[in-house]
Amino acid sequence: MQGNPAIILHAPQLGENIGAAARVMLNFGLTDLRLVSPRDGWPSAAAEAMSAGALGQGVSVTVFDTLEAAMTGLTYTVATTARPRGMEKEVFGAAEAVGALKARQGQVAVLFGGEKSGLPNEAVALCDAILTYPVNPAFSSLNLAQAVGVFCHQWGASAGLEGKFGGKGEGVDAPATRENLIGMFEHFEAELERAGYFYPPEKTPVMITNLRNALVRAQWTEQEVRTFRGAIKALSLGRGKARVVREE
Amino acid sequence: MQGNPAIILHAPQLGENIGAAARVMLNFGLTDLRLVSPRDGWPSAAAEAMSAGALGQGVSVTVFDTLEAAMTGLTYTVATTARPRGMEKEVFGAAEAVGALKARQGQVAVLFGGEKSGLPNEAVALCDAILTYPVNPAFSSLNLAQAVGVFCHQWGASAGLEGKFGGKGEGVDAPATRENLIGMFEHFEAELERAGYFYPPEKTPVMITNLRNALVRAQWTEQEVRTFRGAIKALSLGRGKARVVREE
Repeated sequence: MQGNPAIILHAPQLGENIGAAARVMLNFGLTDLRLVSPRDGWPSAAAEAMSAGALGQGVSVTVFDTLEAAMTGLTYTVATTARPRGMEKEVFGAAEAVGALKARQGQVAVLFGGEKSGLPNEAVALCDAILTYPVNPAFSSLNLAQAVGVFCHQWGASAGLEGKFGGKGEGVDAPATRENLIGMFEHFEAELERAGYFYPPEKTPVMITNLRNALVRAQWTEQEVRTFRGAIKALSLGRGKARVVREE
Repeated sequence: MQGNPAIILHAPQLGENIGAAARVMLNFGLTDLRLVSPRDGWPSAAAEAMSAGALGQGVSVTVFDTLEAAMTGLTYTVATTARPRGMEKEVFGAAEAVGALKARQGQVAVLFGGEKSGLPNEAVALCDAILTYPVNPAFSSLNLAQAVGVFCHQWGASAGLEGKFGGKGEGVDAPATRENLIGMFEHFEAELERAGYFYPPEKTPVMITNLRNALVRAQWTEQEVRTFRGAIKALSLGRGKARVVREE
């Protein structure tokens, strides 16, 4: 049974929007709000005022320096974006996103970008799927708290949708936490760097994003992460070396 | 074919909320905003600022002294309220309300109450049905513009726009053929074998199955298969070797 998702705001600017997001979260029963590098710091008097009491009555706020830290413990995350990204991820409307989130075990989350420019590609690359709203292409920029509100209402309204979506590999094995998945990416990338794979150097970020986008879609279990890390290690030792280490 | 509904705000107080409502209306393509006795008058500098341009770019505002006047020409109106009213009217969720509105001919509308106390019973009595959201009973008061936003998203999502960007990858890149995917697996496994990863030998088949089960879920594109094969090759050459090969 899926509990309520966390809401992560990535580099939000205005305390007013953080407070308004907290209010509409609690309107629909969501209480786990995570902030990554809020521009104006935290706590925020403007956020308190706009939350209409939600910040004192049930919504807990945790502040993180990095998105990776904010994703600790998560098993599935949806990134909200107005623009198609040309990334190979599933793209959901609100109802579909709720169905996908409910089908997952463990703590899930929805990620929203800051007011000015939304989510950077590196942030989207860490997520499993994309949530987008059917906006007017001539006027597509939603207020941040409105974007949060639309999702929260859909979550509240979709109690009957549970189980409608398949869900991959359910119940077989525990899904990997996001920090373990990120650890696997970093291990892979560190060994690729040592091997000299990233060339020319200026292409490193896009090569990393492409690899992560492909791998993240597999929705790894904890066991699979361990297996893959063993494979990276074996390859990085060089031909025949893993066998020697084991047989010593 | 039903056109877009009008949005009527009954005795709204804050220009900020009127502006935010106009913004989210235009986000989802709605343009007919009617105000009944706005407390702070009209026009409103606060509304202009919060509308992010919507008030100048497509949302028309008409001000009325009475709700009856604002309802002139309407054929069907839904009243939004958080409280059950003990009235003999149909009570809809957002998706049902959109369905009911779309089934009517002529100009339809949705009515929202002011910030302080919502809609008076006399106003609800003039409407055909009630729209209510599945709110947290302990924290049920939505911001006015959020309430408008939830409806507008639902309207947009039901216009056949949801899933417009649906499906994976938007055709950005061709999915890998199964033979290329298998080629990638075999390449990976051959290098793992050379590295000595498969140990003890009798476990090789189950280890291969586990790796393939994880990787196959990612639904690789052709380009991603090439990228990953490059990564396997770089790792298998050993630390620093890929760089040497490239720079020869």
